Amino acid sequence: MAEAEVERAATSRFVGFSDGIFAIAATLLVLDLSPPSHLDTSGGLWSALFDKAEISEYAAFAVSFLVIAITWINHRSFFRQVARVDRRLTLLNVLLLLDLSFLPFPTRILAEYLPDGGTNAHTAAFFYSVPMAIMGVIFTAMWWHVSAADSGLLIKALSRDEARNSRLVFCGGCLFYLISLGLAFVSAEAVLALQAVLALYYAFDPLGT
Amino acid sequence: MAEAEVERAATSRFVGFSDGIFAIAATLLVLDLSPPSHLDTSGGLWSALFDKAEISEYAAFAVSFLVIAITWINHRSFFRQVARVDRRLTLLNVLLLLDLSFLPFPTRILAEYLPDGGTNAHTAAFFYSVPMAIMGVIFTAMWWHVSAADSGLLIKALSRDEARNSRLVFCGGCLFYLISLGLAFVSAEAVLALQAVLALYYAFDPLGT
Amino acid sequence: MAEAEVERAATSRFVGFSDGIFAIAATLLVLDLSPPSHLDTSGGLWSALFDKAEISEYAAFAVSFLVIAITWINHRSFFRQVARVDRRLTLLNVLLLLDLSFLPFPTRILAEYLPDGGTNAHTAAFFYSVPMAIMGVIFTAMWWHVSAADSGLLIKALSRDEARNSRLVFCGGCLFYLISLGLAFVSAEAVLALQAVLALYYAFDPLGT
Amino acid sequence: MAEAEVERAATSRFVGFSDGIFAIAATLLVLDLSPPSHLDTSGGLWSALFDKAEISEYAAFAVSFLVIAITWINHRSFFRQVARVDRRLTLLNVLLLLDLSFLPFPTRILAEYLPDGGTNAHTAAFFYSVPMAIMGVIFTAMWWHVSAADSGLLIKALSRDEARNSRLVFCGGCLFYLISLGLAFVSAEAVLALQAVLALYYAFDPLGT
Repeated sequence: MAEAEVERAATSRFVGFSDGIFAIAATLLVLDLSPPSHLDTSGGLWSALFDKAEISEYAAFAVSFLVIAITWINHRSFFRQVARVDRRLTLLNVLLLLDLSFLPFPTRILAEYLPDGGTNAHTAAFFYSVPMAIMGVIFTAMWWHVSAADSGLLIKALSRDEARNSRLVFCGGCLFYLISLGLAFVSAEAVLALQAVLALYYAFDPLGT
Repeated sequence: MAEAEVERAATSRFVGFSDGIFAIAATLLVLDLSPPSHLDTSGGLWSALFDKAEISEYAAFAVSFLVIAITWINHRSFFRQVARVDRRLTLLNVLLLLDLSFLPFPTRILAEYLPDGGTNAHTAAFFYSVPMAIMGVIFTAMWWHVSAADSGLLIKALSRDEARNSRLVFCGGCLFYLISLGLAFVSAEAVLALQAVLALYYAFDPLGT
Repeated sequence: MAEAEVERAATSRFVGFSDGIFAIAATLLVLDLSPPSHLDTSGGLWSALFDKAEISEYAAFAVSFLVIAITWINHRSFFRQVARVDRRLTLLNVLLLLDLSFLPFPTRILAEYLPDGGTNAHTAAFFYSVPMAIMGVIFTAMWWHVSAADSGLLIKALSRDEARNSRLVFCGGCLFYLISLGLAFVSAEAVLALQAVLALYYAFDPLGT
Repeated sequence: MAEAEVERAATSRFVGFSDGIFAIAATLLVLDLSPPSHLDTSGGLWSALFDKAEISEYAAFAVSFLVIAITWINHRSFFRQVARVDRRLTLLNVLLLLDLSFLPFPTRILAEYLPDGGTNAHTAAFFYSVPMAIMGVIFTAMWWHVSAADSGLLIKALSRDEARNSRLVFCGGCLFYLISLGLAFVSAEAVLALQAVLALYYAFDPLGT
């Protein structure tokens, strides 16, 4: 095997592992949906399946799933431009995966406290926004690292202007996460909606890859 | 790496992620099987393992597993014909995976309310049929998209007739899901049987791929 | 892409999906280990971690993990000889995966009822042996199918004698599963030991591949 | 397919399966985080999310995730040097995966008993250190096996000196695991910190690969 081929196989195994974490974290979310207990269904199963508590769970499930799936799409776009994975990129990626694999927990918290309203709902929304914001920061740091003039990690090196512009796009994205953190103190529902919008925004691929 | 090779690697990572979700959703189903509690086993473990409630769980487990596995087989046949994945196909696929990863929840609901009979069992069967129907609709939309005359997404472009005929096959499949939705109001057991039959029908590959 | 390459990519995605189910089923086993409750630890955590109930759980966990991992090794040896996957092989493989993904449930049952001894322990051991036996039968059917003179599925076609001999090896293996079913009525512990021995026996690769 | 290509495909499927176990074990850790119950949140959700019990859970989650992810990185470095996987290496790897997939259990135990302090916390820390130490021993045994002069398993055979030196590095690593076992009797928190440090130490790649 040529050196380049070994490198490519290693990068491919690396993204394969990341894909696994993304796929599992997304699929585990369903485990946090709790069926209505027999006691709650005096009004019929249908209304129990669509009461406020269950709808919170569905909404949190769907938004977190979309966030993970679309983060994965962008992770894919990202690594499609990467020729070689160095140790720092590996460590940043491990932190990204740690953050990502934690996501089902704040999702559960948000689903549970959203229907309560008041301070606890705001706290849950803030707690939910934190790992999202960290994800944005790590992604930005990863891009900062690979887009450095002398990184040699990209398949096609960027010009100074391209590097600066693409970095601005990433930093711009981080602003929205900051807004989400602040919004948590206003409305938990709005945080959930913003995260869904953010996921869809990223689905339209700011990097144009 | 040539452009085509990059494309192929990207498509392959794309289906790899989907495969992961399919495999995990199928395997998580087992977590919803609840062992008979010690209190219930006064008549012996054997009868407790095969009472009405447990058999409902096994049946729902097996049918959902077959549905997921055979949907995967057809997903594989589908993407075997696809040369390139564009953004719309990606988004449709994300929705398919969202729907699919939700499946363990209605499976649990059906397993729990099937033995009750009556309205709740019908509701549970309807609730179970909905994501199945959505799956059929998304698959049809995916095929509609890639089989368009100018999509350029298929490895081997279809003639007008082939495109029309294959689309009819997909729409025909959707009819059965509609029947399943209606059947839910008649018999929950029949819904489970129909879904098993549908899965086996699709196992014999209507697309002939 | 040449036809053969498409075929190989399809087979590779096929085994990838199977690998996923194997890996997930094996890793989910840990979820059935229940920590000793605070109430049980009056004698200290150490003795609570190694009381009869916990040791049953560890033993059932380890044996089931070994069975799944070593079945996977043989699945790998099997598909290493397979050039092409046809529909019947696909369906047999789906049934194998269905059976395999069910395994965490009888594992939990066995772990829970093993310390009870008596009839319930025997029942649990029998219930545990059934999916193991089915796995042996499906594997044999898969080999029967691919080793047929005219299957064209193997990379290197077998002579009549090789086919017959290898089939006998598979049938011989099934005998041991029958023994396990009978042994369940004698001793649940012996069943667990036999399954561990069987797994290790298969680890030494009866097919010589 | 040439012989070497078959070999490479087999090795690649082998590491793919291992990657799956690593990824799943890491992602399942989140299931052991228990949300504060509604009853505990009289002081507000925020303080309930950051009380001593929850922080223990986060710390154990993060350390175990890092250990698994970084063990995976080294597993990747390891197999990057391996040309061929023989049966003994396969079996050692199965044992490594068995040990690894068990890890979420002692993690849960440690998270649960760490806030108690006293003997139970020490016991939990010891119980947590054991599978870590076993992992180090198995890794050392794997390296011992492939680095043998006549193994023929490495892509690039080692000189006598290289083999001896690299083995010493592995044995040196095992020493730290021994220290962790002893440290458990002094302080459970220190064990957690040491494991985090060890993971980060290995992240800087003692093999220099």
